[in-house]
Amino acid sequence: MQEKKGDLLQWHSEAENAFLPHISLDCVIFGFHDGVLKILLLKMKGLDQLSLPGGFMRREETLEAAAIRTLKERTGLENIFLQQYHVFSDPGRGDPVGIDGRDEPGGRLEALRKLGMHPAKLEWFGQRFISVGFYALVEFSRVEPKPDILSETCQWYGLEEHGTLVLDHDLILSTALSTLRMQLNHQPIGYNLLPRKFTMPELQKLYETILGKKLDRRNFQRKMLSYGILHVLDEKRTGVAHKAPYLYSFQLRNYQKALRSGLEAGW
Amino acid sequence: MQEKKGDLLQWHSEAENAFLPHISLDCVIFGFHDGVLKILLLKMKGLDQLSLPGGFMRREETLEAAAIRTLKERTGLENIFLQQYHVFSDPGRGDPVGIDGRDEPGGRLEALRKLGMHPAKLEWFGQRFISVGFYALVEFSRVEPKPDILSETCQWYGLEEHGTLVLDHDLILSTALSTLRMQLNHQPIGYNLLPRKFTMPELQKLYETILGKKLDRRNFQRKMLSYGILHVLDEKRTGVAHKAPYLYSFQLRNYQKALRSGLEAGW
Repeated sequence: MQEKKGDLLQWHSEAENAFLPHISLDCVIFGFHDGVLKILLLKMKGLDQLSLPGGFMRREETLEAAAIRTLKERTGLENIFLQQYHVFSDPGRGDPVGIDGRDEPGGRLEALRKLGMHPAKLEWFGQRFISVGFYALVEFSRVEPKPDILSETCQWYGLEEHGTLVLDHDLILSTALSTLRMQLNHQPIGYNLLPRKFTMPELQKLYETILGKKLDRRNFQRKMLSYGILHVLDEKRTGVAHKAPYLYSFQLRNYQKALRSGLEAGW
Repeated sequence: MQEKKGDLLQWHSEAENAFLPHISLDCVIFGFHDGVLKILLLKMKGLDQLSLPGGFMRREETLEAAAIRTLKERTGLENIFLQQYHVFSDPGRGDPVGIDGRDEPGGRLEALRKLGMHPAKLEWFGQRFISVGFYALVEFSRVEPKPDILSETCQWYGLEEHGTLVLDHDLILSTALSTLRMQLNHQPIGYNLLPRKFTMPELQKLYETILGKKLDRRNFQRKMLSYGILHVLDEKRTGVAHKAPYLYSFQLRNYQKALRSGLEAGW
């Protein structure tokens, strides 16, 4: 812990010069595993609630570069599919601060203090931030989660199993989900979340998870195949209990082309 | 002009206390008139290029409140439909500044100087801004355009008739258009751009403009009526040369309900 405290003080002393003030970013990192949509969350030392991975913007970089940097630090991956989708700017979205200007118990500021940050050194975290939300779609199996300097763990959680998140991170997450739902026909969501080879039931499960409803198996298959974006492979999934299902992969060029006009848009 | 210069100096002296640094917003205000999609643009004194209406964020307000305030100042309207859609954060998006730190000819900083702002007073405009793009949909006839403190005119322009805009405003505009296209089935775009009563050809023209392509008249009408979101009125458009077309209005409740699942989404 002592080492982390030293790192954190060092980091904080450089933050003001390194980053633009008032602007942060938060990343909702989606992965799909065993038929479940998961997100990557951090647990900060001394805090019960979990938080989304986030970061700040260097004075000479774009928001996208800041998000790519943050994602690489948390997942080990480069070339991740990511999209900014909303800016969260409620003046009350920060840590609760009491009327005497001191932070209230149970908040991130108090946890920071437990990490050895003196009040006078909390300036960076005490300012108002507007936060740009990014969602990222990653192939679950390729991620090697790594905590940030404030956190002790970085792990995958199902959407139902993480409890209330810190600050306004529940809103940031739910907005990411509704954006994903709206963009399902316009972004290569399946391509980025699934492994290269997948079965039709796996693809359907992904759609059902994002849309939040059951879909008819035959209709789904008929519709998906009608787009001409799938390639049926000459292999089947082995080692499963029931009838071995066919494996598919995306025909990326056709998929990209279809997305440009929208998979469903009939105009 | 002298009066404006005084106002501008006064405004500038208060800017740093009033607004968060580094964060601006730009508004693409769409109106639909005579079958043409138009946008509201400003012309700054001493500058040939036009610019989108923009503004800054007060230290205690949300981005949305800042956008509503800006839109009210430019259009006279409240309760405008608006959506933030993208943050533009390229470090090179600002005014061109020469290697000696002086702004280059033809830019906004030079124009500001012509307005009587001395270099030392340009600090606010000289900083790096990331800008949050909002698009707004307004009923053309209700708008009373009004220039801002830097501008001499505020007027409607067709999408083909405004030339190159200042800074990265061409990108901000084209991104707004592609967002509008993607959201056509998910946002009440027709409702906000058209007058309360409209004809089917007017609605079709709006869709054609946003999608950038011709649509088949019969298919369009059949599809639009199939959604159950239109109300055919017991009146016809009078004073037109050809056969008088029926007037329609939106059944707002059905429209909103249909948009929630997406007008085209068949899942």
